Amino acid sequence: MAATPSAIAVDAGGSTTRAVVVDREGACGPVVRTGAGNPVSGPQQAAAHIAEACVAAVAASTHRPDLVVATVAGILSRDFPELDQALAEHGLPTRLVLVSDLLGAYFSGTSAPDGAVMIVGTGAVAAQVSGGQLSAVRDGLGWLLGDTGSGFWIGHQVARAVAADLDGRGPSTALTARILDTLGDVPRRVGVRNSELAALLTWTQSRPPVELAQLAVLAADEAASDEVAHQICEQAAVHVLATLDSLPGIGGGPVVLGGGVLDPRGPVGSRVHAALAGRAHRVSDGVAGAALLAIRELGGRADAPMLARVTQGLVSP
Amino acid sequence: MAATPSAIAVDAGGSTTRAVVVDREGACGPVVRTGAGNPVSGPQQAAAHIAEACVAAVAASTHRPDLVVATVAGILSRDFPELDQALAEHGLPTRLVLVSDLLGAYFSGTSAPDGAVMIVGTGAVAAQVSGGQLSAVRDGLGWLLGDTGSGFWIGHQVARAVAADLDGRGPSTALTARILDTLGDVPRRVGVRNSELAALLTWTQSRPPVELAQLAVLAADEAASDEVAHQICEQAAVHVLATLDSLPGIGGGPVVLGGGVLDPRGPVGSRVHAALAGRAHRVSDGVAGAALLAIRELGGRADAPMLARVTQGLVSP
Repeated sequence: MAATPSAIAVDAGGSTTRAVVVDREGACGPVVRTGAGNPVSGPQQAAAHIAEACVAAVAASTHRPDLVVATVAGILSRDFPELDQALAEHGLPTRLVLVSDLLGAYFSGTSAPDGAVMIVGTGAVAAQVSGGQLSAVRDGLGWLLGDTGSGFWIGHQVARAVAADLDGRGPSTALTARILDTLGDVPRRVGVRNSELAALLTWTQSRPPVELAQLAVLAADEAASDEVAHQICEQAAVHVLATLDSLPGIGGGPVVLGGGVLDPRGPVGSRVHAALAGRAHRVSDGVAGAALLAIRELGGRADAPMLARVTQGLVSP
Repeated sequence: MAATPSAIAVDAGGSTTRAVVVDREGACGPVVRTGAGNPVSGPQQAAAHIAEACVAAVAASTHRPDLVVATVAGILSRDFPELDQALAEHGLPTRLVLVSDLLGAYFSGTSAPDGAVMIVGTGAVAAQVSGGQLSAVRDGLGWLLGDTGSGFWIGHQVARAVAADLDGRGPSTALTARILDTLGDVPRRVGVRNSELAALLTWTQSRPPVELAQLAVLAADEAASDEVAHQICEQAAVHVLATLDSLPGIGGGPVVLGGGVLDPRGPVGSRVHAALAGRAHRVSDGVAGAALLAIRELGGRADAPMLARVTQGLVSP
């Protein structure tokens, strides 16, 4: 078995990096987890976390891989020299293939060469895959200019709806009591009309706007019984489906869905899954896709039985 | 004339402070202008600008006022000790009456004791006046949680619409060419789908979000011929009118409108003025109202003929 060509497959995420040694026939070692591997928020540390995961994955495997295939956020046409250096310093394979995390997520859900993928967590981004490559990307533009229907978008709508309720401008909503519970004891600002509104303003002004994404879970919790929360989730689903629809040639192929907002048990994810009927494939991370891309790179057959074998192998190697 | 009781009336705004000496009969000296007098963005410097304006207004007058009446943003229940100290240091009257800038704007447009006022510039805030005092305030909650229909709100919608157009998610709009002209030559970010979208992202990420308010003028320019710009302005007017409608007892009284977005020559202001028919009164600043409040404080008659006299006197003292 040790003679079969092998690679280290890495899924470098915004909060966790996962690495696994996989051979050309789809046999997987144990999955190793380290910290954030997204170079956009610090390439040096991301490279260190990825190298650390690779060292541990190799140590846990009987293979001696000579290739690293890493799916990384924000890699579309960019270099990642910090990772080249970290791999060399740790005696790891220096043959490195960088792939978009969108492609890793896509191939975690399907082996079809043509289809689409959408990830909706704090942000929202969709991509089309043609002939096994990314052929178009939509949104992923950040909370200020885009990310429509994302966790930030939902949390922002929650905060604005609660502010309007407390201000006497908007309808009463169960979200208000939920958000005030979340705030707990915060310093009150003087000179504003009521102390709950002051507490909400103080809370939002004391942290980066993107943290409003934390409030998205309140909308999901209340969507079944509260009209305001229901409408926010409905609108988020409409935006998500519109972003998917804007891909130039989505056709009837598979649509891979990732990120917490698209969890089929939640109010947004359930609507999006229902709208896509049998075409939707749910994924929780991109490590299986990274492994499938590594197998393709090694000259193996990256088909449906291989994806099934890898997916099974990652659960019980 | 020098024996008539007099006061210094101050309108301390976010970019300009205006001061004028006014006597109990409504006779005004010349209006003096200095820098920003809003204590929210630096109480020490605001106090210095207000004192500087007061010194100049007294120097230009034959009166020896013994009272300062200042309309100040964000003053609802707050002290402004920096101003007490600055007045004392400059040998100015230390008898100081602080009033909300909303009341100053209101009394610049009407002498009626009951009515409403709304100011829509970068932000958006409305207030009800009952018996000559503020009785309710709506919105004014900042760009992240409120300010619906404001210059920021419009500019943000413009930026998002242009991002969606460039991203292939939204309708084509004339705003896109306008915004790209505004950006000029900016450094291009790598790794994003097209260079115009990259330029827009770079521009927005390199400055505070609130500066998107600068783009509001593009929506006003294009509203007559571009559907996207038209819809943004229509929605802004709907939000402005909803905020006014949320005041608890607006009734049929006068509605004073201030701030650039409510300019009756613009697409939002024209719609709001039309919806309010004959009840709308346009004001450009709050100095006449500050003068009327000073006359009231001096025991004079703050009625319609007095407001007319003050307004006329401020133009040609």
